[in-house]
Amino acid sequence: MGANDLWAQRTRALLKKHHVIMLNMIGSPGSGKTALLEQTVRHISGRHMVGRDSLSRRGRTGLCGPTLLKIAVLEGDIETKNDAERLARLKCRVSQLLTGGGCHLEAKMVHRAARDLPLGQLDMVVVENVGNLVCPAEFDIGEHAKAVVLSVTEGEDKPLKYPVIFREAKVIVISKIDLLPHVPFKMKKCLAYIRKLNVHAPVLQLSARTGKGVKAWIDWLEAFAGVMP
Amino acid sequence: MGANDLWAQRTRALLKKHHVIMLNMIGSPGSGKTALLEQTVRHISGRHMVGRDSLSRRGRTGLCGPTLLKIAVLEGDIETKNDAERLARLKCRVSQLLTGGGCHLEAKMVHRAARDLPLGQLDMVVVENVGNLVCPAEFDIGEHAKAVVLSVTEGEDKPLKYPVIFREAKVIVISKIDLLPHVPFKMKKCLAYIRKLNVHAPVLQLSARTGKGVKAWIDWLEAFAGVMP
Repeated sequence: MGANDLWAQRTRALLKKHHVIMLNMIGSPGSGKTALLEQTVRHISGRHMVGRDSLSRRGRTGLCGPTLLKIAVLEGDIETKNDAERLARLKCRVSQLLTGGGCHLEAKMVHRAARDLPLGQLDMVVVENVGNLVCPAEFDIGEHAKAVVLSVTEGEDKPLKYPVIFREAKVIVISKIDLLPHVPFKMKKCLAYIRKLNVHAPVLQLSARTGKGVKAWIDWLEAFAGVMP
Repeated sequence: MGANDLWAQRTRALLKKHHVIMLNMIGSPGSGKTALLEQTVRHISGRHMVGRDSLSRRGRTGLCGPTLLKIAVLEGDIETKNDAERLARLKCRVSQLLTGGGCHLEAKMVHRAARDLPLGQLDMVVVENVGNLVCPAEFDIGEHAKAVVLSVTEGEDKPLKYPVIFREAKVIVISKIDLLPHVPFKMKKCLAYIRKLNVHAPVLQLSARTGKGVKAWIDWLEAFAGVMP
């Protein structure tokens, strides 16, 4: 077992001690990972507001009121703190991990950042990996599950072309569905390609921009958090 | 100098012997590299047709008639031959390079494929690298220039987040501009970010889908081909 896997094991042991679960989010640059996390934080903190559909109104319907999920985010990037700043603005607990050129997060970096989090106060750590559909899929960072985010602008053939992450993911997000009328994306084909690789993972179609489908994502996160001892 | 760089040097020597120039195209999965190559082949072969704007009409205006550029394409992918098949359908000379999991093309693979091309009949070899904005930027494959393709759906901040390729590219393509009305992409900001990293490279805004801006890309390719001894 290599050094990376040892660090990943240490992280999982640390998280287990605090009953915290970790999700490793992987996707191409610009697939909408950060936008989805922004919406997630808004939902969870009860500050969700899309268009004219304010919290107070939706709260009454029970559709997306505040949840009890307490999360922190580890933001992986090669350079810039843009994404961490986007999330910090929402008062989300977030740490920036800069790889300084590296194409994926390594378990040791994640371990150090996780150790500095107030794990006793958290249910979940979401790690946004470097924007890259290839390399991050191959490195264990101590997560309990991988999520893959594929935007409809990337084309329906991407599961076939980048199969490793689609095989490994425990949840598959098809993002930016608000753009479906404007792009030549064949959803039915995409779903068939995904099912060739992965029979079990739920496939969630959503738009972080309009909010459509985000509730199902939050529901999945809550169920995922509930799996942890 | 590592083995990769030696193979890259050998490829450049081989290409020089035949007066062939090589372009290394890099971009995220789904950024539109293959779609742009399809349009390129259509233009070059004089079979360009977008919407109702048929060749015969455009040919008379001299806007996009057949050029004399003779190209071959090397298609880099992790798995599947989809992209090579898309180009072969257009009667483009194309070879598929499969990395079998690898996140970038290596110089040795490219050298072997280049050696098998009818170089004496070509002006240019365009290599479409694996869809990945990170790793391919760091490996010389024997090219004379790198091109980067960024789609407007990825967001204007990507040059700052993935600076290596934007610094190194000799031409920068902003693709899918037909989607600008539907995405929150700030073109002015994007151009400013690019200019922070790269003062000289032309930035071409285009849509392979509508054909807008593709002529400027073909013009750039022709000028680039003219640079070669």
